[in-house]
Amino acid sequence: MTDKTQSPTANAMWGGRFAAGPDAIMTAINASIGFDRRLYAQDIRGSRAHAAMLAATGIISPSDAEAIGEGLLTVLSEIEAGSFAFSEALEDIHMNVEARLKDLIGEPAGRLHTARSRNDQVAVDFRLWVRDQCDGAVQGCRALIRALLDQAEAGADWVMPGFTHLQTAQPVTWGHHMMAYVEMLGRDIGRFTDARARMNECPLGSAALAGTGFPIDRDATAAALGFDRPTANSLDAVSDRDFALEFLSAAAICATHLSRLAEELVIWSSAQFRFVAMSDRWSTGSSIMPQKRNPDAAELIRAKIGRILGAAVALFTVMKGLPLAYSKDMQEDKEQVFDAADTLMLALAAMTGMMSDLTVSRDRLEAAASSGFSTATDLADWLVREAGLPFREAHHATGALVAAAEARGVDLPDLTLAEMQAVNSAITGGVYAVLGVHNSARSRQSYGGTAPDQVRAQIARWKGVTEEWA
Amino acid sequence: MTDKTQSPTANAMWGGRFAAGPDAIMTAINASIGFDRRLYAQDIRGSRAHAAMLAATGIISPSDAEAIGEGLLTVLSEIEAGSFAFSEALEDIHMNVEARLKDLIGEPAGRLHTARSRNDQVAVDFRLWVRDQCDGAVQGCRALIRALLDQAEAGADWVMPGFTHLQTAQPVTWGHHMMAYVEMLGRDIGRFTDARARMNECPLGSAALAGTGFPIDRDATAAALGFDRPTANSLDAVSDRDFALEFLSAAAICATHLSRLAEELVIWSSAQFRFVAMSDRWSTGSSIMPQKRNPDAAELIRAKIGRILGAAVALFTVMKGLPLAYSKDMQEDKEQVFDAADTLMLALAAMTGMMSDLTVSRDRLEAAASSGFSTATDLADWLVREAGLPFREAHHATGALVAAAEARGVDLPDLTLAEMQAVNSAITGGVYAVLGVHNSARSRQSYGGTAPDQVRAQIARWKGVTEEWA
Amino acid sequence: MTDKTQSPTANAMWGGRFAAGPDAIMTAINASIGFDRRLYAQDIRGSRAHAAMLAATGIISPSDAEAIGEGLLTVLSEIEAGSFAFSEALEDIHMNVEARLKDLIGEPAGRLHTARSRNDQVAVDFRLWVRDQCDGAVQGCRALIRALLDQAEAGADWVMPGFTHLQTAQPVTWGHHMMAYVEMLGRDIGRFTDARARMNECPLGSAALAGTGFPIDRDATAAALGFDRPTANSLDAVSDRDFALEFLSAAAICATHLSRLAEELVIWSSAQFRFVAMSDRWSTGSSIMPQKRNPDAAELIRAKIGRILGAAVALFTVMKGLPLAYSKDMQEDKEQVFDAADTLMLALAAMTGMMSDLTVSRDRLEAAASSGFSTATDLADWLVREAGLPFREAHHATGALVAAAEARGVDLPDLTLAEMQAVNSAITGGVYAVLGVHNSARSRQSYGGTAPDQVRAQIARWKGVTEEWA
Amino acid sequence: MTDKTQSPTANAMWGGRFAAGPDAIMTAINASIGFDRRLYAQDIRGSRAHAAMLAATGIISPSDAEAIGEGLLTVLSEIEAGSFAFSEALEDIHMNVEARLKDLIGEPAGRLHTARSRNDQVAVDFRLWVRDQCDGAVQGCRALIRALLDQAEAGADWVMPGFTHLQTAQPVTWGHHMMAYVEMLGRDIGRFTDARARMNECPLGSAALAGTGFPIDRDATAAALGFDRPTANSLDAVSDRDFALEFLSAAAICATHLSRLAEELVIWSSAQFRFVAMSDRWSTGSSIMPQKRNPDAAELIRAKIGRILGAAVALFTVMKGLPLAYSKDMQEDKEQVFDAADTLMLALAAMTGMMSDLTVSRDRLEAAASSGFSTATDLADWLVREAGLPFREAHHATGALVAAAEARGVDLPDLTLAEMQAVNSAITGGVYAVLGVHNSARSRQSYGGTAPDQVRAQIARWKGVTEEWA
Repeated sequence: MTDKTQSPTANAMWGGRFAAGPDAIMTAINASIGFDRRLYAQDIRGSRAHAAMLAATGIISPSDAEAIGEGLLTVLSEIEAGSFAFSEALEDIHMNVEARLKDLIGEPAGRLHTARSRNDQVAVDFRLWVRDQCDGAVQGCRALIRALLDQAEAGADWVMPGFTHLQTAQPVTWGHHMMAYVEMLGRDIGRFTDARARMNECPLGSAALAGTGFPIDRDATAAALGFDRPTANSLDAVSDRDFALEFLSAAAICATHLSRLAEELVIWSSAQFRFVAMSDRWSTGSSIMPQKRNPDAAELIRAKIGRILGAAVALFTVMKGLPLAYSKDMQEDKEQVFDAADTLMLALAAMTGMMSDLTVSRDRLEAAASSGFSTATDLADWLVREAGLPFREAHHATGALVAAAEARGVDLPDLTLAEMQAVNSAITGGVYAVLGVHNSARSRQSYGGTAPDQVRAQIARWKGVTEEWA
Repeated sequence: MTDKTQSPTANAMWGGRFAAGPDAIMTAINASIGFDRRLYAQDIRGSRAHAAMLAATGIISPSDAEAIGEGLLTVLSEIEAGSFAFSEALEDIHMNVEARLKDLIGEPAGRLHTARSRNDQVAVDFRLWVRDQCDGAVQGCRALIRALLDQAEAGADWVMPGFTHLQTAQPVTWGHHMMAYVEMLGRDIGRFTDARARMNECPLGSAALAGTGFPIDRDATAAALGFDRPTANSLDAVSDRDFALEFLSAAAICATHLSRLAEELVIWSSAQFRFVAMSDRWSTGSSIMPQKRNPDAAELIRAKIGRILGAAVALFTVMKGLPLAYSKDMQEDKEQVFDAADTLMLALAAMTGMMSDLTVSRDRLEAAASSGFSTATDLADWLVREAGLPFREAHHATGALVAAAEARGVDLPDLTLAEMQAVNSAITGGVYAVLGVHNSARSRQSYGGTAPDQVRAQIARWKGVTEEWA
Repeated sequence: MTDKTQSPTANAMWGGRFAAGPDAIMTAINASIGFDRRLYAQDIRGSRAHAAMLAATGIISPSDAEAIGEGLLTVLSEIEAGSFAFSEALEDIHMNVEARLKDLIGEPAGRLHTARSRNDQVAVDFRLWVRDQCDGAVQGCRALIRALLDQAEAGADWVMPGFTHLQTAQPVTWGHHMMAYVEMLGRDIGRFTDARARMNECPLGSAALAGTGFPIDRDATAAALGFDRPTANSLDAVSDRDFALEFLSAAAICATHLSRLAEELVIWSSAQFRFVAMSDRWSTGSSIMPQKRNPDAAELIRAKIGRILGAAVALFTVMKGLPLAYSKDMQEDKEQVFDAADTLMLALAAMTGMMSDLTVSRDRLEAAASSGFSTATDLADWLVREAGLPFREAHHATGALVAAAEARGVDLPDLTLAEMQAVNSAITGGVYAVLGVHNSARSRQSYGGTAPDQVRAQIARWKGVTEEWA
Repeated sequence: MTDKTQSPTANAMWGGRFAAGPDAIMTAINASIGFDRRLYAQDIRGSRAHAAMLAATGIISPSDAEAIGEGLLTVLSEIEAGSFAFSEALEDIHMNVEARLKDLIGEPAGRLHTARSRNDQVAVDFRLWVRDQCDGAVQGCRALIRALLDQAEAGADWVMPGFTHLQTAQPVTWGHHMMAYVEMLGRDIGRFTDARARMNECPLGSAALAGTGFPIDRDATAAALGFDRPTANSLDAVSDRDFALEFLSAAAICATHLSRLAEELVIWSSAQFRFVAMSDRWSTGSSIMPQKRNPDAAELIRAKIGRILGAAVALFTVMKGLPLAYSKDMQEDKEQVFDAADTLMLALAAMTGMMSDLTVSRDRLEAAASSGFSTATDLADWLVREAGLPFREAHHATGALVAAAEARGVDLPDLTLAEMQAVNSAITGGVYAVLGVHNSARSRQSYGGTAPDQVRAQIARWKGVTEEWA
């Protein structure tokens, strides 16, 4: 990665002040070019905006700005073509770009440094990068929402066990379960959108920490870089990284949601559940055990919350107790955010892919939904609602009817009306309308409930939302 | 805490199904009344709204609703009077309230359970509680902003060292430094406000997990409890705790900001700095060492990020990989949020108090600002800007001038014009306008810069904001 | 909790130095008596050892030491009888005890402070407390190991599916699975034992931070308190809390192990698995759904790693970057360790109880073990080992035999020898010795393997270990 | 990194079972060769031991074992020469090595897979790697201890302020302060050593999870790889990663220690303290501000605890609630441990380098030590010890003497005996022996105290220890 043809300190900014060159350990702990090179596009974009503003305000000449702008485009194309020689001795992306710019255009390159310092430069680069990740996370969540909506639409009325404590509690529908994750991801989108709006202020022009005496136009650079406005305090602008912490927190919440769906997929694809089967694409198998299909992708997605939470903890710990303004500790911000963002995008993409070609066993879902007298609460509710029994009496009657069914080895809807009335004479034939898992699900018509009509209404609402995204 | 007069299982909801009573260990790990009693007001408020809605929709009779509503007020007053006998055998706040309600009003108490389960009940209680904490955090941040504005106004033009790496870099003003924290807290307010808006949906009516067949009116309960709308998916409503994770994340970011100011206060009050002195109220001393004043409050505030970050990690870890819908693991959500919220409010209050009666040594700040040739960059900038020197040459001349001043044992403004011109003939008397820490600070007129005018403009803007809060 | 009869600052150690009394906020953030009262026994024990040493070295008189020792016993009995009036104005347990001692014995109480400060006092108290928790954790792990050994012994040869990716991979035995956790807990014991040994140095005599000029005998106090030796550096002794971090880390690892077993119990008790049934004691049910038995205790144990990991993160974050020696931030150490220790003990006790009366379905285990051609790898291994086939050919033949069995709807041992030889003529009747889940398990005779003989050998080894504990 | 000449699924182990090839997303989330290639040496070492054992037990022929052993050495040399073509399609290091071995030696390569699976293979590789890191961490701590001992020896009697709350409390010596960190690092060594001993059991032979039916010799492979013994339970051996969690915990504790020293160095090198100056090698400067020397390395070391704690949190979160045995989630273990280990080694090396050429200002230390009446406690102690005053009276007299000194603008030793006796007639000339910072320090002769003799005794003890390391 290092350009070996350079003497190690030749371009170190502090030049001759240090008799001894930084040795290998210092380089290893200090140089950031190994990772901050990822900011090259943001760095060049920021510098171009800065140079244009310097010319517009008369701080540098139009011809210098033109040379700088063109030179930076050359650097950009070199980096994107893979022909740029990154140098570890030049420590970071800013100095690498600047040194190459000087090679290309000579003297005017130095003027780019006017009214700017590395502190506001890295702040703007990193903010642009994190802002892009907010957009990327929104896109990723949207794609997964679309895949979940397809699943929900297909199975809006497929009944499955609604679990509490991983025990069958009441029948719900597959569509309802899918839509629960749509809601979660909808809030995730909200968090990334809010974070983006909050961080969308431009630190450029804060200089080292105190602002500058040059007559710069911060509104101009803010606008050129797509920011809503310049930051209002130069010390804050170069010191804080709360925008990164907020991104990491939102990413950790989103990854928590993904871990829950992933866990369900792992459990549902076990031999004992067999609710779903992952496609070959997202699982691995055994050449000699045809039924073994390891849900590798689901397991890896489940694990990713660890990685993202770890990144958040790392940056919180780094920022704890740091005096203003810039401290070198803050160089640790980038690798954590890079890794967390990459991880989140990958997990969202993999989950989207997995949900898109997931095979769902409607039969296994329905069979499981019917077990365990899962409509007992429907019966009790009916006794209260329709037969007017006090809650306690309704409960008692339900217990007796379940016992009767259990004794006969059947489910509740299989009891005859006579058998039911033997337990409580207030029961009428109307009770059958809520027994059986389909009836149960259909009956839960409260807003947001599992009744297929309710589920379809939510699907329709979300489809409207997705159309606005297009 | 346990009401010893009750037999341990008498009121356990699952009644006779368990031959063996839960023993001490199970009670210890399972019962939540020891902490969830804090939700009593929310629980009663939610139940009252639910009962009123049940009557309005004809599901229960008006007289039952009346009895329930009145009975719940009685329970509320008993709890607030300290005369309520909480029972550990009744496990949680919901059952404790319900059992007492039944004592008070008899049969109708059971009807409160219609179309509701403990799952949506706890979800609404906890959401109401966390929503209040968002409001409380906003209030706490606002109070601290006001205290910081007072400090900023007093010292809008007091110069102090602007540090990077805890080394003097450039002069800034005390007001500017204070306003950096105002900006941070402003964003903290934004995060709590966004979190509140996102969580402000009512889970009541989601029942156990699937919704209900009773013809409830979820809009009515949502409105009665101040929610913007009911939640749109009953499974999601009882399963997710992302609102708590978001609150914890916002709290951790805010506490990170506080830890940074606290660290500065600790350093600034050391014998070596003496920039500030904490009042007796917020520090402890030694009866025999009059100059020793331990900044206890600042240290404790600095530490609190640990506690809040720990709470966030705890709940993230709990929620990782939990299948839908409710699992008992989620009972762990409350203690973490309770402790983090209490901690944050206390830290904000203590910091507000400490900043309100902080004594700042304007002299020490100014003396420190002047050390280390802190206006060398101003000189270099002036040479570029006013004398038209290329950046490299300006830098070289500055180095020579600093060396000259150092050799004479004076600061830069103490050099004569002749001495300066001996280094570079382009220097004119105008240079003195940027030398000296006051001139330096005044010159940084870029938006958000440290010039007192800029600082005062930001103070004025924020005062306008605070007036809107009133 | 506060003794309202005292004026708030009357007994504050720094007495008249502070004109203003600490107000409610400062008391709330500063006072530790609300939690550090748990250290009362350790505090009194440490003080008694210190007083005895002071007398033995002639620093105080025997009669003073006698009075102090007796007085402290009185305080101890008052606290244990619940008649001690803790005062928040006296801030912490040390000052509460000392103030009461002075009430009881007058002037000599002050001499207890000779050659000691609150810094080494709290260090010794807390270390004694954490040391006890190491012992408690060891006891808790031992009890759980005994319960697991009972389970292992009962089911040393019960076959069950050995899972990878929650997919059936190869048959293992119930005993083998139980013994995996015995190994983990054995290492947990090792960690707590190592931590105890490392922390078992006595900080008493380090005084505020620099040691003391009094001719104290640190070996005597160390011995009296059961420490191996005094700490060797007084600054380190009052500054570091790595012993607490190590305890929290060991607790987090142990809790991770418990969370894994708990997750298995939750999955195994689902309707789809039904491998195990928790007793009524450790689960809750539904009065109307007889098959629903919620594994509450297992879920809560699963969640506890969150709480303990959160505590560890909290203390790591607090200690990050603290200069030596004592800083008030360190007051945050106790609540985290208290909560984590309580949580761990409770989780160990609950898991021990749950495993002790767990009902295991040998039939369901065996049926599940047989599914999915789980002995296909045994067949392939046999072909390599006994029939001398190259690995690739053995694999191919196995695939063909599995396909043949699948086509016939039978398991591998149900194929006739002729059917087998049709696939590969090298197969002999000996192959049946490894087919079928019992044969498979029995064949895995490698050390530590799942063969019942191997499992029983490990059980016997561990029984020997447990006998040494008795 | 990918070998583009291979078709993407050609060598995927599960071969033809999957119609569709894993696409880019699955490859990105699933393939580990990008990071687990770091295990190449461990993988080859483990395979060579396994092959030798297979031959020794007659499971494979000596000639096959010979071919395998030689082939693996060729692979090793290719990797170390940089000529090995790693393939992403071959997913992990194990399959990359195995595929190349097959290219080199053909058919016998397949026999290496006998009685082994990827599960025990990766377990042994990773354990060997982590074991090496324990050794590396011990070496790193030892080097830093040596550097600290040099500092301690040089300044065994240099007085400096002993701080509590960053306020001067009592004089200590530079050597004493350095030795505090030696003690901490000594315990860190203990933790790494204990972790190493606990993890030093060989999982090889556990096969997929159940052990094997081949007559392998696990003692032989354990011995060949330097393990103390084979693991006793095959399920545990492939499932647990507590050895990695323990390493990460020990690393986090060690990094916490480093963060504290780093914080001190940052504060001590501020313009206000100037206790120390970092060499050019470990800091960066400003070409125009000669006194500004940014302690970059210290700041970066301070930050590293964040990274290591984050890694620990990540792996704890990953392992939480994972059922036995191997789950793909566990693939996340390696990157966290790799990064944490690299980070720790780098931080230890940088701190060692920084401490080795740190310039300490004995004068500034001593001047600071004398400020703030830092020997007031010595005076009070003397009054108790030598003049026989009750504690309270001694305290009162001390306060009066400090006030007298403060009024005169002098330090305590500058008061005349007459002035002292005016406050309390029991004072004799002997008091001067404890006043003044040197006298104070010298007087603290308790074991582990700051008296230079005590410090030198500890240095000598540790020098003895370091000689044993040689």
